[in-house]
Amino acid sequence: EKIYKHSEITSSQYGINVFIIGLFLLLACSIQVVGVSERDLKIFLIILMLIQILWMLWYILRNSTKKSAQKEKDGHAGARWLRCGISFFALTTTAMDALKLGYFVGYRDCMPLADAVYPVVHVIHTLFQVYFLWFHSQDVINSYKTLERFGLIHSVFTNLLLWASAVATESKHQLAEHMGRLSSLGFVNISFEEINPLCNCTTGICHEFSKGIYYIYPFNIEYHILASAMLYVLWKNIGNHIKHHVNKRSFDLHGVAFGTFLGLIVLAATIGAVFIYICRIGRSKTSSESALTIYYWYSITVLFAMSLATVIGLILYKMENKPTVQAHSPSIKLDANLLVGAASGSWITSWGSILALTFSGSYQTYTWFNLPYSVLVIVQKYVQNIFIIDYLYCENKHPDGIVDDIEIPVPIFPSEAVLSENRTTIEAFTDEVKEKKDKDGNIGNIILEDNTAEKNSPDNNAKNNFIDNSNEKDKTQSVQPPDNPTSSNKLRDSRFRKVLLKNLTIFLFLCNISLWIPPAFGCRPQYDNGLEALVYGFSPWIILVDIALPFSIFYRMHSVYSLFDVYCKI
Amino acid sequence: EKIYKHSEITSSQYGINVFIIGLFLLLACSIQVVGVSERDLKIFLIILMLIQILWMLWYILRNSTKKSAQKEKDGHAGARWLRCGISFFALTTTAMDALKLGYFVGYRDCMPLADAVYPVVHVIHTLFQVYFLWFHSQDVINSYKTLERFGLIHSVFTNLLLWASAVATESKHQLAEHMGRLSSLGFVNISFEEINPLCNCTTGICHEFSKGIYYIYPFNIEYHILASAMLYVLWKNIGNHIKHHVNKRSFDLHGVAFGTFLGLIVLAATIGAVFIYICRIGRSKTSSESALTIYYWYSITVLFAMSLATVIGLILYKMENKPTVQAHSPSIKLDANLLVGAASGSWITSWGSILALTFSGSYQTYTWFNLPYSVLVIVQKYVQNIFIIDYLYCENKHPDGIVDDIEIPVPIFPSEAVLSENRTTIEAFTDEVKEKKDKDGNIGNIILEDNTAEKNSPDNNAKNNFIDNSNEKDKTQSVQPPDNPTSSNKLRDSRFRKVLLKNLTIFLFLCNISLWIPPAFGCRPQYDNGLEALVYGFSPWIILVDIALPFSIFYRMHSVYSLFDVYCKI
Repeated sequence: EKIYKHSEITSSQYGINVFIIGLFLLLACSIQVVGVSERDLKIFLIILMLIQILWMLWYILRNSTKKSAQKEKDGHAGARWLRCGISFFALTTTAMDALKLGYFVGYRDCMPLADAVYPVVHVIHTLFQVYFLWFHSQDVINSYKTLERFGLIHSVFTNLLLWASAVATESKHQLAEHMGRLSSLGFVNISFEEINPLCNCTTGICHEFSKGIYYIYPFNIEYHILASAMLYVLWKNIGNHIKHHVNKRSFDLHGVAFGTFLGLIVLAATIGAVFIYICRIGRSKTSSESALTIYYWYSITVLFAMSLATVIGLILYKMENKPTVQAHSPSIKLDANLLVGAASGSWITSWGSILALTFSGSYQTYTWFNLPYSVLVIVQKYVQNIFIIDYLYCENKHPDGIVDDIEIPVPIFPSEAVLSENRTTIEAFTDEVKEKKDKDGNIGNIILEDNTAEKNSPDNNAKNNFIDNSNEKDKTQSVQPPDNPTSSNKLRDSRFRKVLLKNLTIFLFLCNISLWIPPAFGCRPQYDNGLEALVYGFSPWIILVDIALPFSIFYRMHSVYSLFDVYCKI
Repeated sequence: EKIYKHSEITSSQYGINVFIIGLFLLLACSIQVVGVSERDLKIFLIILMLIQILWMLWYILRNSTKKSAQKEKDGHAGARWLRCGISFFALTTTAMDALKLGYFVGYRDCMPLADAVYPVVHVIHTLFQVYFLWFHSQDVINSYKTLERFGLIHSVFTNLLLWASAVATESKHQLAEHMGRLSSLGFVNISFEEINPLCNCTTGICHEFSKGIYYIYPFNIEYHILASAMLYVLWKNIGNHIKHHVNKRSFDLHGVAFGTFLGLIVLAATIGAVFIYICRIGRSKTSSESALTIYYWYSITVLFAMSLATVIGLILYKMENKPTVQAHSPSIKLDANLLVGAASGSWITSWGSILALTFSGSYQTYTWFNLPYSVLVIVQKYVQNIFIIDYLYCENKHPDGIVDDIEIPVPIFPSEAVLSENRTTIEAFTDEVKEKKDKDGNIGNIILEDNTAEKNSPDNNAKNNFIDNSNEKDKTQSVQPPDNPTSSNKLRDSRFRKVLLKNLTIFLFLCNISLWIPPAFGCRPQYDNGLEALVYGFSPWIILVDIALPFSIFYRMHSVYSLFDVYCKI
């Protein structure tokens, strides 16, 4: 316990210092400090990746000798679909590295060797890391803590630095495109050129490679942030004794056709809007304006629909009385913090837009769309976070599907009751029902046959049992015993609520995927609309957007994961 | 429980949004956006303060009707010396507001009314807040949670915004002084003027008022950051059921003359060094260089001594086997996070200096002092954080002073034993000892009389009892029963270690007070040494230092509190 706290602090401080050094190198490259080049940063990252590879090798070999029975696992962490997701992103990252190598071959006469070594090491690093996360992301480490802690925190911050470096490259590219558009429209004289190699391409397809690389960047960015989140959960779990039992989640698409349909419409509309935006923006003043107008109308509609759906979901949550998870789970806590933290990114840009509108005197027509758009961005993320976190902390009330099958009308629970007590009484009740099932053969009949039986019948008593704690007897008396019309109504209500909630969640899920696309593939109305840059000045606003936007993109991706989780829990 | 989680998320998101709006107004004022003035920011802050005052009034009135017996208290939070500290800072803040009012009276013809309302509201806000923190900082709120949460988070972020605004004003002032020095030395042509009122001062002492205000700013900054930390602990404690029992801490200065003496020498040297620095810097090139050289020599010596003391303290910690606190205390956790977070501020500037040295080609003589100085700043904060956090998490082993009095040689404990079990067995043992004390009259003799008794004597068994869990029997066998020379040696060792540790802590305490003074009162070698500004460019480096330095100053103040806490625990 003592070594555990000690190594937690020591290792986190080590990680922070490594991160600071990396960020400084990145900053120095961005502002083109004399004496530092892109090569220095790459060498630094290569060293970090090599250390991580060595550590992972050590860890994997060390663990392969242990029996699997001895290992503790945290079921909340590293869900299967999360690992599938990271494998997909890793695949695209590998493709990107291949393209980078191809690009290097074309310019091999004038590019430093680090540009060839970097993608090779990165591919090896990716393979090892995916293997590591696939097989070990649920581990709860309880021995050899110090080296594990240092290795994990090193991996977390290595991935964060790779993420930051990818974000910086991507932002620079976006900025160059934006400046190109501005100067072609005659707005600015500043030319912001990306540095191209000084020799000619020998293979003839370097430009295609380069283009391909920038299309894959959004996936690469997601890969690294996701990996560092999973590694952080592993780090947090060291020395934790996992007490809570995790239930298998079910994933079925029964009865969610309506939500899926609406969501797919939004997805289709998004692809259309992004296509129009990218084609039209920067061509001429009028086509830019029409692209912005279309984009704002599309966004406002989608965000409004999402906010509405979320608010309905929250009302449904209030109506149900599911208890909250008691156990401390680092993984759920991290999810919640990441959602709020990442949402702050777009809150910053949105408040920037709103304040810019109030500060500014003269307006263009399309800037007025900016106000409802920004307000809706803030509101939508505000309520969606509450929705997701409320449901993530929900106790999954059907440990073995039985309670779910007969669907007891849930609102009988007194809301102030102590949870742990409830839990055990529920389980006792479930066991009773199970026994009956064995005896009677058909569980469904129990409730339906109950109608005629009055309050004092033994069956009914058994049912009331699970809220019948001595100190709550008076409350229990006021609860109506289920009689036919009410109980079947409640049954119908509860089932209807559940289906409605599933539809809402799948709709939100698809909408969040949709809203991830525009910023990831280059729709940046915060650049193009021009108002904020005018008010705050060009560079302050661009720097702010470049810092905040990656968080906003990550938010969408992360809420997609979380909504999937919520869907499986409902 | 459900409402509790829900309101936690809702309120924290509200707070973040308020904070973002405030920061935008601050940013807009700093970069002088057209359409925003200092006045808008002040009005915004006044509104926030008024809301907080109303909420505090409601809370105080609401609580005065409750019986004090019903209230739960968290003993970890809001210690008496912390409340004394905040009262002192509040006093200086009130003095500052009086000076501001005096300044306004002098320029009343040309200053906006907001400049008069602001200090008045600020004084009222300060009075209410100190009253609130003095009487309610240990409250654990368990009813009416939603409104309490919103009020508290509102108060936290209001104080953070007041802090940020004070920091911005102070930084602007420091920058103006620095630019003045540079231009008087002929280095730059840029003139950076603070905006002065456009009319003449009618009272004749406006300049003195203005000077006084800037001397008090460091205290005002500490006041707000401290208040927001205390309010945050209150917010975190809502709905927590405090399980751990907090022991009275003892504060005595017995036997720490040596540490105090060394610490006071450092304090005197600091005042001398700051005096020389402020007098000499910016006069001429040579006097600037000599001021920097003296300052670096002084800092390197002090930091080296502190690092050494801390490392000795850590070795002593390894030798003692105190168990760690098990209970989750938001207050200790916040302390640890604040220390690491605040240290990051100076890690950023230090790594910046180190990398600047490696990037740069040509060196001035005194810049070479920069390297050991920066390395020592990093190392010193690294080890000091480990030291403080390790001891903060320590279990206080003398619940009623008895164990302390007889000073059982502690290292008998097997380090892997389960802590909660140990705790109860210790208490059982203590009770046994107590009983004996009643019987024999003199406790000291028990151990001393034990020498002749062999392993199997009943006395000895009773003593071994408290580690004698069935699964650890083999370990227990290897532990030597205390016999005369060893036990008295151990007694002496343990007492010596304790005295040494107290001396070290008081030395560190005084050193941290000393190191708070230079940056708070205007010694900024990061500005004056010129190297980093040359490498990274003037404005990027200045912005970085202006953001990082307040954290670094806060770090010193906060580690002073924490070291005091550690001292009382030893």
